[in-house]
Amino acid sequence: MGGHSKCNVIIADMNDPNFAPAAPSSTPQVAPPGPRHTVYFVSDGTGITAETFGNSILSQFAIKPRHVRRPFIDSTDKAHQVVREINHTAEVEGRRPVVFVTLVNPEILAVVKEHSRGLVMDMFNTFIEPLEAEFGITSNHRIGRFSDVSESKEYSDRIESISFALAHDDGQSTRSLAAADVILVGVSRSGKTPTSLYLAMQHGVKAANYPLIPEDFERARIPGSLVPFKAKCFGLTIDPDRLARIRNERRPNSKYASIENCRWEVKQGETMMKKEGIAWLSSTHKSIEEIATTILRDLRPDRLMY
Amino acid sequence: MGGHSKCNVIIADMNDPNFAPAAPSSTPQVAPPGPRHTVYFVSDGTGITAETFGNSILSQFAIKPRHVRRPFIDSTDKAHQVVREINHTAEVEGRRPVVFVTLVNPEILAVVKEHSRGLVMDMFNTFIEPLEAEFGITSNHRIGRFSDVSESKEYSDRIESISFALAHDDGQSTRSLAAADVILVGVSRSGKTPTSLYLAMQHGVKAANYPLIPEDFERARIPGSLVPFKAKCFGLTIDPDRLARIRNERRPNSKYASIENCRWEVKQGETMMKKEGIAWLSSTHKSIEEIATTILRDLRPDRLMY
Repeated sequence: MGGHSKCNVIIADMNDPNFAPAAPSSTPQVAPPGPRHTVYFVSDGTGITAETFGNSILSQFAIKPRHVRRPFIDSTDKAHQVVREINHTAEVEGRRPVVFVTLVNPEILAVVKEHSRGLVMDMFNTFIEPLEAEFGITSNHRIGRFSDVSESKEYSDRIESISFALAHDDGQSTRSLAAADVILVGVSRSGKTPTSLYLAMQHGVKAANYPLIPEDFERARIPGSLVPFKAKCFGLTIDPDRLARIRNERRPNSKYASIENCRWEVKQGETMMKKEGIAWLSSTHKSIEEIATTILRDLRPDRLMY
Repeated sequence: MGGHSKCNVIIADMNDPNFAPAAPSSTPQVAPPGPRHTVYFVSDGTGITAETFGNSILSQFAIKPRHVRRPFIDSTDKAHQVVREINHTAEVEGRRPVVFVTLVNPEILAVVKEHSRGLVMDMFNTFIEPLEAEFGITSNHRIGRFSDVSESKEYSDRIESISFALAHDDGQSTRSLAAADVILVGVSRSGKTPTSLYLAMQHGVKAANYPLIPEDFERARIPGSLVPFKAKCFGLTIDPDRLARIRNERRPNSKYASIENCRWEVKQGETMMKKEGIAWLSSTHKSIEEIATTILRDLRPDRLMY
């Protein structure tokens, strides 16, 4: 099994014809001068959906707007309050804010749409209508998608997986490794702990993590307790310079953090993973979300279908 | 300062005129018979944005579709592969799948739009155009919003906050409580650990958590180490029956898990939080996301604006 060290994320080359901007290239690519744009995220729930989605759209623009999240707007009174805030911003800044909304109650939505001086992006209703036609049923206009989630199997799986990740962090316990969905291996500070916690929290996946330490490299074998579970091991590696920087924040000027030692450990780790046939990737230029998704795609594709 | 025990999430009453469905009420509210719908989430990145957003729209319908996430679709070849899969599903199931896409490259998007037999919901471009007009700049059609995030300040804050949450879990350390943004208090198993980790991972907020234990109740005072930091404490409480159920999974038939003890601890905990003027909420019917958002709104509204 080969490594996954190449980066899956492609930064578009602006000279590549595939990535030509939609508008004529004479259009300026930087934001016009003036105060920063303000973007509101207004929701009857947490606003996390609105903000996640809004952010991924905004990342398509070379501007850095100010973010304001207004969660739990579940009455027309609260909607009017937010509208006043939006209109005040419009006045002070001399331009209308962009307002991403996820509001299912039509009355509350109407307050924002009709009274605010912002550019309202109604993320929900744009897609609800075609889906009503497709499914042949009406939507239920129910506020709060998380509302009864806390009693669900999916939710208790997440909580249980968080406990599992904590109990199996940094090789603390080899008990119940059989119950792990994934075992992350790699040198100290290569990103194993945040990835395990993310896999638990976002996907309800039980991830143990196990450090590869100099003793393992001297024996030139993975820790014995992992041998029966090699098929569910996944390796993380990292650029030695980056690793040295991270380790130096923890233990400045130590042998542990020295660039020579980091180079040696990383090389040994990669050699071992190749030898043992453990799939791996480099965490250097990847976010936790990307690492977790890549692991699931390669090791547990079933977890991307449910 | 009052408690926050009332639930912020409102489940709409179907008889409430505010929540009347958009279509005539004669429309059936249950899915028509037949195989389950399949929903695809196709993205050039992790697909998490597509899935988060798609899920929150799908939660408006009384159906439970099968989910298939297809991340890292960053070439037309991969797009054709997904299209074949979608079309196969359409054929086998006798109806077209719903396909939520976040694809910024127009060529890759065109493959899915033109060749797939699914109902394609193009989440990106719907909103990009009005924003290009608003901002007066073209979008950069760049794949992978996380791509250089791993070098950003925001990202290193998240990683550092995760370490902080782990080091300050369950009252393990009272060192550097001064550096905490939030200190969660509450009886054992009231949801403090997952909430601390979520605050770190999602918001880069440093959250310590501190259990309230029988000795604290006997002294009728919060732990001395918390006294200087009362203003950044936030309490979690929980329904005693729910707590007993959760604790019984851990330590069956123990005094710790008994309903009498749970009732006593919860009552003592709530009394103490009231007396000390610590804001609190009940985690019983709330998701981690909702708890975290409520805490930020009440304690650190600055963290909802940046």
